[in-house]
Amino acid sequence: MKRVSLEGAVCPIPLDRYTVVTMAHGGGGRLMNDLIGEMFLTAFDDPELRERHDAALIDLPGRRIAMTTDSFVVSPLFFPGGDIGCLGVYGTVNDLAMAGARPLWLSLGLILEEGLSMKILWEVVRSIRSAADESGVAVVTGDTKVVENGKGDGIYLNTTGIGVVDSGKRIGPASVREGDVLIVSGDIGRHGIAIMATREGLEFETKIVSDCASLVNPVRALLDDGLDIHCMRDMTRGGLGAAVHEIAGTSASTFVLDEKSIPVNEQVQGACEMLGLDAIHIANEGRFLIVLPAGQGDRAIEILRSHPGGEEACMVGHVLPRGCASVVMKTEIGMERIVDLPSGEQLPRIC
Amino acid sequence: MKRVSLEGAVCPIPLDRYTVVTMAHGGGGRLMNDLIGEMFLTAFDDPELRERHDAALIDLPGRRIAMTTDSFVVSPLFFPGGDIGCLGVYGTVNDLAMAGARPLWLSLGLILEEGLSMKILWEVVRSIRSAADESGVAVVTGDTKVVENGKGDGIYLNTTGIGVVDSGKRIGPASVREGDVLIVSGDIGRHGIAIMATREGLEFETKIVSDCASLVNPVRALLDDGLDIHCMRDMTRGGLGAAVHEIAGTSASTFVLDEKSIPVNEQVQGACEMLGLDAIHIANEGRFLIVLPAGQGDRAIEILRSHPGGEEACMVGHVLPRGCASVVMKTEIGMERIVDLPSGEQLPRIC
Repeated sequence: MKRVSLEGAVCPIPLDRYTVVTMAHGGGGRLMNDLIGEMFLTAFDDPELRERHDAALIDLPGRRIAMTTDSFVVSPLFFPGGDIGCLGVYGTVNDLAMAGARPLWLSLGLILEEGLSMKILWEVVRSIRSAADESGVAVVTGDTKVVENGKGDGIYLNTTGIGVVDSGKRIGPASVREGDVLIVSGDIGRHGIAIMATREGLEFETKIVSDCASLVNPVRALLDDGLDIHCMRDMTRGGLGAAVHEIAGTSASTFVLDEKSIPVNEQVQGACEMLGLDAIHIANEGRFLIVLPAGQGDRAIEILRSHPGGEEACMVGHVLPRGCASVVMKTEIGMERIVDLPSGEQLPRIC
Repeated sequence: MKRVSLEGAVCPIPLDRYTVVTMAHGGGGRLMNDLIGEMFLTAFDDPELRERHDAALIDLPGRRIAMTTDSFVVSPLFFPGGDIGCLGVYGTVNDLAMAGARPLWLSLGLILEEGLSMKILWEVVRSIRSAADESGVAVVTGDTKVVENGKGDGIYLNTTGIGVVDSGKRIGPASVREGDVLIVSGDIGRHGIAIMATREGLEFETKIVSDCASLVNPVRALLDDGLDIHCMRDMTRGGLGAAVHEIAGTSASTFVLDEKSIPVNEQVQGACEMLGLDAIHIANEGRFLIVLPAGQGDRAIEILRSHPGGEEACMVGHVLPRGCASVVMKTEIGMERIVDLPSGEQLPRIC
């Protein structure tokens, strides 16, 4: 369906009438009706949404679906390279893509803080719409709640996504095999450092821009090429380290990482050294890991590099049978060290 | 699948180790792993969830699905007759039931406030599990975020539900016809007044208990009986008034309500009079409206009354072609007045 473009569109709620979100915008009465009718239906313009029924009814093109959910509490709401709106779409469609599913539908649950600027809400809504269009998904159902000033932080949002799995093949940790190679889809750590720099007011020579992006198209290209992908995982909270740990843990194998091959942007590396952080534990929002047979690694890298943001895609490790540890790093000077999972994350509210 | 009962189960996170939720429980590291592994997987014990993949993969028994989402920010977290956990399940499965769908799967997105008592979290998680079991749904995917103390209110949660639509018949406002009757499934206004009483410390002779409940079974019974249901709507925020307004608005008809037939519990009526409120605008969480042909009204009421909580089910109005107003009330003294939609709700954060 062709939707009206929101490029440059002004906020459909008259800002002289409602400059900010009020408690009544979440109360189920006329103001809430106006917010939904004038802003959300304008932005997401979907026939299912327009029905304003309690649930969206969707006809599926297949019988196996993937379902995932993610809440977003990123602070600040806007950061170099993105905002909570596009992040909220990318986070969920990327999770569907990781399961080998074609993302089709999203739900949108908003928890707004009383006093939130109506203009900021509109900016975020536009960003959601634009990221949804880019990822080929429609927002088909939604919900809005308003909490008192001081009981939230501007906007929290939840998106839940449904995608259709075309192939019968199970992509996941259980399919990982000894001898498989591990590929990253681009340089790591930019999202976390971009958020940290904005929040803490750190200045770098060049602005570090978040990697946040939709992974739907590169994943589709890998699958369409017929590659025998065993597992994929996006590297969000906990970064590369946590993602590898999760796969290694579930598949009961050991992953050996080659430190010098892990792509890290020079500015990000500098920031990490300054702050005493390790880039492999920093969050990303548009990077993923691929595990597949060794002989198909080069082809996967070639495909990834042909997509925007994938220029630095490369092989960073391989899979062994379970040894003494689940993740081992071969350092630049040839030593081996065990990669542990940190107890928390260096930086909360990254997504 | 038979899951282990949580009846009387103690919190699986050792409370001497973690009395409260910390920021690190949302950070993607080891503490978050423990919270998910020890608490959530224990509570929801589902094979899909146990895979801990980015998305749950589900095989559908049909091709048409219903999808709905709801965020819950109710304050206080516990109230007479329920808590945010069971409310979070009922709210979403009820919306699916209203669309004529059989609810099957839920996602669970938690936004926890730093410092939340781990014991309270466990109570809520148990309540979610018990309400899910009662409604025949499984929690198949989830997400947890933690926000700083003072940026939330204990627990906010989002559930998104998927159900399967067995019949090809479209149940919704578009199917409403002139001459249809309007039935309520029980007495109205108890949830809103129960919350208000708890929050404001109001005392009544008898404690007013929320009506919050799963509507899955009564709806299933109505549909299985072969009744030609034209529309259903649960009366949540905005109460009976808003629900009738929404149906009337979308179906372009006029609904005439008969004031003296609307069932309101004596205590609730007393509280409304004391507080200057109208029960038809008070929120419910386990009551719904049914619109169906006049000749089938008695049978529908008979079925509703055979379910717990449905003892007061009765006919409260009928449908005319669109006149001068969308909702008209015939008052007890025989006058007619237009029922308007209030601008907000009398009480925020009811769900």
